[in-house]
Amino acid sequence: MAIDYQPPTSDYAFLYREAFGTDIVARATGGELTAEDAADVIAGAGEFAASVLAPLQSIGDREGARLVDGQVHLPDGFAEAYRAFADAGWVSAEAPASAGGDGLPGSIRAGLGEIWNASNAAFALCWLLTAGQIHALDAAASDELRETFLTKLVSGEWTGTMNLTEPAAGTDLGAIRTTATPRGDGSWSVKGQKIFITWGDHDVADNIVHLVLARTPDAPDGARGLSLFVVPKFLVNADGSLGDRNGVETVAIEHKLGIHGSPTCVLSYEDATGYLVGEVGGGLAGMFVMMNSARTGMGFQATGIADRALQQAEAYAAGRMQGRVLERDADAPIAEHPDVRRLLLSMRSDVFAMRALSVHVGDLFDQAEASGDAATLALAEFFVPILKGWATEDAVTLTSDAIQVHGGMGFIEETGAAQHYRDARIMPIYEGTTAIQSNDLIGRKVIRDRGATAERLFAQVDETIAALRAAAGDQPQGAAAQPATRAADRLERAVASARRATADIVGFAGSPRDAHAVSVPYLMLLGVLAGGWMHGLAVVAVAAHTAPDDADGARLTAADFYGAHHLPRVHALAETVASGETL
Amino acid sequence: MAIDYQPPTSDYAFLYREAFGTDIVARATGGELTAEDAADVIAGAGEFAASVLAPLQSIGDREGARLVDGQVHLPDGFAEAYRAFADAGWVSAEAPASAGGDGLPGSIRAGLGEIWNASNAAFALCWLLTAGQIHALDAAASDELRETFLTKLVSGEWTGTMNLTEPAAGTDLGAIRTTATPRGDGSWSVKGQKIFITWGDHDVADNIVHLVLARTPDAPDGARGLSLFVVPKFLVNADGSLGDRNGVETVAIEHKLGIHGSPTCVLSYEDATGYLVGEVGGGLAGMFVMMNSARTGMGFQATGIADRALQQAEAYAAGRMQGRVLERDADAPIAEHPDVRRLLLSMRSDVFAMRALSVHVGDLFDQAEASGDAATLALAEFFVPILKGWATEDAVTLTSDAIQVHGGMGFIEETGAAQHYRDARIMPIYEGTTAIQSNDLIGRKVIRDRGATAERLFAQVDETIAALRAAAGDQPQGAAAQPATRAADRLERAVASARRATADIVGFAGSPRDAHAVSVPYLMLLGVLAGGWMHGLAVVAVAAHTAPDDADGARLTAADFYGAHHLPRVHALAETVASGETL
Repeated sequence: MAIDYQPPTSDYAFLYREAFGTDIVARATGGELTAEDAADVIAGAGEFAASVLAPLQSIGDREGARLVDGQVHLPDGFAEAYRAFADAGWVSAEAPASAGGDGLPGSIRAGLGEIWNASNAAFALCWLLTAGQIHALDAAASDELRETFLTKLVSGEWTGTMNLTEPAAGTDLGAIRTTATPRGDGSWSVKGQKIFITWGDHDVADNIVHLVLARTPDAPDGARGLSLFVVPKFLVNADGSLGDRNGVETVAIEHKLGIHGSPTCVLSYEDATGYLVGEVGGGLAGMFVMMNSARTGMGFQATGIADRALQQAEAYAAGRMQGRVLERDADAPIAEHPDVRRLLLSMRSDVFAMRALSVHVGDLFDQAEASGDAATLALAEFFVPILKGWATEDAVTLTSDAIQVHGGMGFIEETGAAQHYRDARIMPIYEGTTAIQSNDLIGRKVIRDRGATAERLFAQVDETIAALRAAAGDQPQGAAAQPATRAADRLERAVASARRATADIVGFAGSPRDAHAVSVPYLMLLGVLAGGWMHGLAVVAVAAHTAPDDADGARLTAADFYGAHHLPRVHALAETVASGETL
Repeated sequence: MAIDYQPPTSDYAFLYREAFGTDIVARATGGELTAEDAADVIAGAGEFAASVLAPLQSIGDREGARLVDGQVHLPDGFAEAYRAFADAGWVSAEAPASAGGDGLPGSIRAGLGEIWNASNAAFALCWLLTAGQIHALDAAASDELRETFLTKLVSGEWTGTMNLTEPAAGTDLGAIRTTATPRGDGSWSVKGQKIFITWGDHDVADNIVHLVLARTPDAPDGARGLSLFVVPKFLVNADGSLGDRNGVETVAIEHKLGIHGSPTCVLSYEDATGYLVGEVGGGLAGMFVMMNSARTGMGFQATGIADRALQQAEAYAAGRMQGRVLERDADAPIAEHPDVRRLLLSMRSDVFAMRALSVHVGDLFDQAEASGDAATLALAEFFVPILKGWATEDAVTLTSDAIQVHGGMGFIEETGAAQHYRDARIMPIYEGTTAIQSNDLIGRKVIRDRGATAERLFAQVDETIAALRAAAGDQPQGAAAQPATRAADRLERAVASARRATADIVGFAGSPRDAHAVSVPYLMLLGVLAGGWMHGLAVVAVAAHTAPDDADGARLTAADFYGAHHLPRVHALAETVASGETL
């Protein structure tokens, strides 16, 4: 039985208010919103998620989506939930102001993303794809397309999908064969088959807007020949009402390991009416807007699924009485056994690291937009593959640990722990596998600038190390002094390993096979380091408290634990990176 | 679609013949059998497994076991397969000669265990529990029980189960409440409920022999009050024919994440007729015989499931054409992409490490039995929790990597990769969780002798390092010279970290919470080190080849890869061990 969902409101209040040394919400909004307002938004989302979305999570898993006579049906409750979700304004909360949305800063959207995914990851995918399409159309669509489609997406009346993959074109988008032929009336005839289309069909909204990568006549080979098209499930009349069914059919839905409540469709386009978004040949650039949004969103999903798995394990460990704890005579909950405590702290400290980095990446994009500073934007983009790759890989491990806490009960489906383990496994694959993220990282973001952006991150870690040492020196008797010193020592060694590994990667510029053979270990190294940095920032913030906060002790323990159990992976990974390709 | 199963005959031939510096089969059998005979046994088992067991693997997953009117049914084909398995002599192949079995050495039984589990893990559990009970009854049962039950188990006519867990007694066996009351006629009345009983009921054999831990009247509290009973599903008449149904009922079977073809039962005992095995109060000791056998068997299962997952990933990666490999123009199979190659090599090198350690542990028990040497037995027993804990944990990660190789197809159930990931997850839990293994390791096997047995392992690693250096010096131009030097360098640093970590654990003798908070990281450290040692031995063996063998290059690459990607974890884990409990 899946446990109730507890939104992580206190962590978000801490992150918005002080973990980054300032009220980042006020900074991002020019004071229009404050950390306190942001905490209110998070609390409201948490309440909605806990009461409306979380109860549908295991139903979605058990019943799953079904395809009947060409129409996909979701389990009872999903359609009502999506309606309530849109009516409560949670779709427009994600949309930029230019698209008619609330234009919330990225740091708040990170929190919302986590909460939707934690409460119901399968449901959240519908929101995630719709939100991604909102960003893509906002960036490139004509006024007419904005009027017809974007407004309906932002209002939550319709939902969006992302159509890239084909049977012979997965990671290699250049192999896409779907065609789009101009009809002469401004519309295009789209023809081809797309697979792995998340929420590609359903019955929770009146219309579905497919964003489709296709090849135009006489287009060059490869990715440069791709253009982007909007293809609605139902055609839209001039007055905005729904017309005939368009030429797109759901041929099949997949029988998957997890996220059963999210229909994964095979869509067949047969003379379907489409509308060009942006320029001919600009498909990949247009889709990248959506993909970047989706990739950052994967960081939020990883945090969310990981936190839900953690919450489930914590509840079980607190309630399960079994055996004597070493120094005691009486029975105790298993949470007090040292190894169960280890597993819980491992998860807890990793979830905080993911959550904090998600907020930081959201905030960096806000800072970049506000300042127009290219270096800040480069740093924000540097973090996208790291967050996506590292958080999703760690989340898979974490859901496995969450099963372990349950012992034999973890393997029984009714317990609910197994669902997270099954749901999580897709995260390192979709929206670009971890290998794709790591290619992006080393190719575009490390080798190209010879490690300059990476070095800007390391310099910031250096600053945090200095702040930790200063905090320990200022209050040598304070509760944070020893954890601060340990964190500084550990981060110092970790950033040294990271610098060496970065030099190794830059040194592999002339032997790309070496670079690509260790690009995933390098990505993981930077993710683990960034997590340690987030904990370092938290220790600095705790040390600055003049009056102790209830959560201070737990934050220091989590930071210490992360430093002892997660951060040392940096050194092992650096040794792996140095080896290049093994022949 | 699950791929055909390829038994790893060439690895076993290498391990039996030369990897450990001698023909270990001839040594264990006093020359009665040789490595060549052993390779024949493995080939025969592989043929049987590939043709009879492997085709049932995905059927077992899809259809699963069903409980209908109190009787468990397996999918079509399972009963015939078990009959064929027993008729071919594969049950008696596991049994000791004293029980009427073939008395094969442990090194061969390791190979058989891997093969049954690789081809069909759910099916293999029936064999594994039966084999464990054979060892337990052979060690402690009266002549009458041997005559009535043991002979039928060895012939494969009946199967066996292991009944420990109850709703409130999982890891803590001392909490067991099932009772056994003497009836005065030599039999006992058994009453209670047992859960998580693997193959607790089925329709693949005529009778089922339950081995049940229960509490006798006036027995002391805790584990010392437990005795062991044989409780058959059907009573046995004096002439050996089957009599009435005994008072044991299958109340439910579990709906599990994986191993759907293995029925996991809730059994209710109501005035069931049981027979005491061994002495009153000797239950735990008797069950430990079975558990040790089952724990070593988990190492074989981990190797088997891991190898099957690897084979599936290799087949997919060899056949899937996608994208250009860096330096080429033409499409290539994804196996040639550097990161896919990394994943495959990671799995391949880990499977070899598990397989070799499984064989080594089997062989150590043989050596201990032959020599009666207490130190050899201590080393064999030292490895049991390491093999069980490390191999099962690594196998879970490995099945996750195998999914990653498939990209999006890995998440689709029909591909077959997901089944391994689901099946594998139980391994670090049953037969004692990884925490239980690590408690056994640090409590009974490291702290008690102040690291003496661990040091004997490290001294053997030192010897291998010396042999690697000698090999590199002897043939400085040989293909193995550079890999030998790298392996020696890496093992030297790894064993130094392992010695430090062992000293840390011994130093925690007075602060058990510190020891237990890092006991799993310590166990994993020793497992990873042992894996590196196995690869070191392989490099020494390859370097000794006067004529090159086809597999030499692959063995050197695997060893190098393991040294660069797996072995560095030792250093990270040593840092974790040093930290003790984080408060």
